[in-house]
Amino acid sequence: MAPHREGSEASVEAMVAQVEKHPISTILIIIAMQTEALPVVNKFQLIENPHSSFPKGVPWIHYHGAYKDITINLIWPGKDLTFGVDSVGTISASLVTYASIQALQPDLIINAGTAGGFKEKGAAIGDVFLVSHVAFHDRRIPIPVFDLYGVGLRQTYSTPNLLKALNLKTGKLSTGDSLDMSPHDEASIAANDATVKDMEGAAVAYVAELLKVPAIFVKAVTDIVDGEKPTAEEFLQNLAAVTATLEEVVTQVIDFISGKCLPEL
Amino acid sequence: MAPHREGSEASVEAMVAQVEKHPISTILIIIAMQTEALPVVNKFQLIENPHSSFPKGVPWIHYHGAYKDITINLIWPGKDLTFGVDSVGTISASLVTYASIQALQPDLIINAGTAGGFKEKGAAIGDVFLVSHVAFHDRRIPIPVFDLYGVGLRQTYSTPNLLKALNLKTGKLSTGDSLDMSPHDEASIAANDATVKDMEGAAVAYVAELLKVPAIFVKAVTDIVDGEKPTAEEFLQNLAAVTATLEEVVTQVIDFISGKCLPEL
Repeated sequence: MAPHREGSEASVEAMVAQVEKHPISTILIIIAMQTEALPVVNKFQLIENPHSSFPKGVPWIHYHGAYKDITINLIWPGKDLTFGVDSVGTISASLVTYASIQALQPDLIINAGTAGGFKEKGAAIGDVFLVSHVAFHDRRIPIPVFDLYGVGLRQTYSTPNLLKALNLKTGKLSTGDSLDMSPHDEASIAANDATVKDMEGAAVAYVAELLKVPAIFVKAVTDIVDGEKPTAEEFLQNLAAVTATLEEVVTQVIDFISGKCLPEL
Repeated sequence: MAPHREGSEASVEAMVAQVEKHPISTILIIIAMQTEALPVVNKFQLIENPHSSFPKGVPWIHYHGAYKDITINLIWPGKDLTFGVDSVGTISASLVTYASIQALQPDLIINAGTAGGFKEKGAAIGDVFLVSHVAFHDRRIPIPVFDLYGVGLRQTYSTPNLLKALNLKTGKLSTGDSLDMSPHDEASIAANDATVKDMEGAAVAYVAELLKVPAIFVKAVTDIVDGEKPTAEEFLQNLAAVTATLEEVVTQVIDFISGKCLPEL
């Protein structure tokens, strides 16, 4: 991998340098699906904020609450106003990340959710990954430099102590707006060296970097992409059990964060 | 095509009903590439607003000016901060559409830009289309209803008088984040019945609908997707000439809009 493919390590370092040495006080959790969000909402007894500063008419839901010394904000993009399903994918994720950062000025973003995993890269159903890098696999622009912009490789905010303390797996995440995987996607995911695949992560990372907020990515594996079963079927079958695991790990992450400064993560 | 595939005609009608019967006073033009934007900026002698209400650090550029009785705002998402190329694609387009609507409260959005055209559907290099419908071709989610959300078919704001007065071609637009076209994209574009293909339109339409602002789409053909030449090469070869044509048509559109109410378009 050529040096310029390492993406935006420099700007991540700049973020770290900017961080004040105070304990993390406000976090923003972004979760795309209601089924993934509700276990966390219930665990921390978060309540819906009916006076969120989001514009009138958007379906985005802001849950908030206090836990130890942290203000927890959880944003779920809500049900699509036309189709009534969870507003999954990169566009909704980008918009809510942008609007939530503007409204809440968080110290840290946690994008949590389910993902497809590659068994060839060591993923199994129910594994939870703390993501090291994100990239896109469905933005092919075969013009020099535009190609790299399309891939959008970014290093996530580095949290070596969190990774060690929780004994999580780590790997690279590849993001695209399709639940399935076309041959072109597969080639791009392989080029991205990804262990997990989702529909939001790299978009959240893009906006977080744009607005200089550190972001981490907690992804729980619902389906094995390079396995036997059809993705949609396996995803739906494992969704409930895996979201319970996801809630447990998000809780552990918040417990670990509590009382710490960003550089201590 | 089944009735529920007709998308969001009802909400478009709701928009129209909400429209006050006053002449259009503020328009928001969204253009993804500098090469596409500058001819329009120069034509209307728009100036860059150094005090835009966009957050610190984003590369988005706000040009503005007055023409006849209209305040023209033109937003170009700028050069990517990491890679230095135009911030093309659906994520940037969504973010600038959202932030610009919030800041400028436009009466009408015009998304103008270049596009690939299908000769089989009647498109030729230099043709300018006023788009009737938009949809996505790279958001495949094979779960019932999620599949329709992914496609995101939307009727654009209907402007029959504008279409007739300017004698433009009309057709459906399909949007995706890749400049090239994979076999999966091709099948989806065919299912979308698209005549033109771009990288922003359906995203702008999604955000415009979310925030209840009428939007129209002016797309000029730089390359023939179902032709002999490689897309990237043909795109770059025709970009300068076609953007000149695009500027002429955008000027005609603004001249037509001037002094009219939305329902008169």
